[in-house]
Amino acid sequence: MKIKISDHPTFNKEWDKKENEEKTKKMLKKIGRLQNKMYAQNKFSILLVLQGIDASGKDGITKGLVKYCNPLGIKIFSFKKPTENEYAHDFLWRVHQVVPRKGELQVFIRSHYEDILVPTVEKFIPSDVIEKRYEVINDFERLLETNGTKVLKFYLNVSKEAQKERLIERIELKEKHWKHKDGDWDTREKFDEYLGVYERILNTCNVIPWHIVPADKNWQKLYAVAEVVLKTLEDLDLKWPELVSERFNTQNKPE
Amino acid sequence: MKIKISDHPTFNKEWDKKENEEKTKKMLKKIGRLQNKMYAQNKFSILLVLQGIDASGKDGITKGLVKYCNPLGIKIFSFKKPTENEYAHDFLWRVHQVVPRKGELQVFIRSHYEDILVPTVEKFIPSDVIEKRYEVINDFERLLETNGTKVLKFYLNVSKEAQKERLIERIELKEKHWKHKDGDWDTREKFDEYLGVYERILNTCNVIPWHIVPADKNWQKLYAVAEVVLKTLEDLDLKWPELVSERFNTQNKPE
Repeated sequence: MKIKISDHPTFNKEWDKKENEEKTKKMLKKIGRLQNKMYAQNKFSILLVLQGIDASGKDGITKGLVKYCNPLGIKIFSFKKPTENEYAHDFLWRVHQVVPRKGELQVFIRSHYEDILVPTVEKFIPSDVIEKRYEVINDFERLLETNGTKVLKFYLNVSKEAQKERLIERIELKEKHWKHKDGDWDTREKFDEYLGVYERILNTCNVIPWHIVPADKNWQKLYAVAEVVLKTLEDLDLKWPELVSERFNTQNKPE
Repeated sequence: MKIKISDHPTFNKEWDKKENEEKTKKMLKKIGRLQNKMYAQNKFSILLVLQGIDASGKDGITKGLVKYCNPLGIKIFSFKKPTENEYAHDFLWRVHQVVPRKGELQVFIRSHYEDILVPTVEKFIPSDVIEKRYEVINDFERLLETNGTKVLKFYLNVSKEAQKERLIERIELKEKHWKHKDGDWDTREKFDEYLGVYERILNTCNVIPWHIVPADKNWQKLYAVAEVVLKTLEDLDLKWPELVSERFNTQNKPE
């Protein structure tokens, strides 16, 4: 396979923390201003897909990223285990319901990729059924892009050691108990299996490319994600809308 | 009627701007910490209903209020004119679908109260049908409270002069053009009619009481709303959840 997760760092030694954090803050403020303009223009949207193993920091990155944004144009959706009703539909049914409307920045914490990852490792769906999902996802993401949605996909690359530290914090700190699930320790036993499926996804569901982000430290992943989001916003043709009125203009104002 | 809108200031002369803004910032930071705890505890929720005429500042107050909050626990919903499908159901059908889940702070920008206000003034629904909605709303809000939702209702009290200034800004400033609607100037002609219906609502849909907030200046309304939200969060019995585990505790950690 072309992309190997092990070729990508979980921590980038060449980045300087202080310098990096200053750059990140500036980028986040720019992101806020551009996202507000995107919301006003009501033409484009962004779907940010955050994938990574348990405790790779999906929640934290979301908080950091939207700090200076206009909250009216931000939507955040955390995918959980599908309900019985969701299972009774095709796997994209529930996903399609929560894609961004024009103007919005929508964050997916986990996503349709879980519908490949979990059934493959836990083996509760026949492999030929799972197999078809790779191409179906490519088609789905292409559909979203035809409607003015930029799809940005991130794999948060965390080391097994950093994951362990964070999972233990959930047992130690009372402010983090609510995040603890015994099951996360069972999933951790299958760390390498999950990584194998991720690699297949990164190489196959790539009509829209993935960004692999070093995720052992919060400041590193926020920097890396902010860079991509800012570049995307800058490349969109964002404009303040013209005045739409049959009665008024800047010369002819109401009395 | 007991409550008269004209008895309430649109600008509170006794408040000092600088002092007030400092207090507001402190309150907003406390709100952020408590809202995050409410989200973690996953037991209570808050529904914040923002009502007021066009340009009374509903969007702005929402942005200010959630500044230090955990965005994962914030939901914002702006009610627009009902769709054909929504009209084909009872008026609370679409509203009920977007009430907060446990742990969430949900902001309604406009709300079910529009379903009394607009049809009364514009006269497109028979008055005996509208009449029943007052009690139905009281029942609905009571239902939400039985499920651990605190319903906080705000009437943003803006003067006709301040409204005019803000509507004109939307014609003058390119960053605000997108908010302009010619129709807002027609609605403005019916300012007093709308206020009359609001007064009836404030006096009748009062199983859960209203807060009337001076809304001519942004710093005043943010202060007033923050005070109520903070008090509500402080009065809830917010606790970090205990560790739920069949295997681990602080003495017995994973190896």
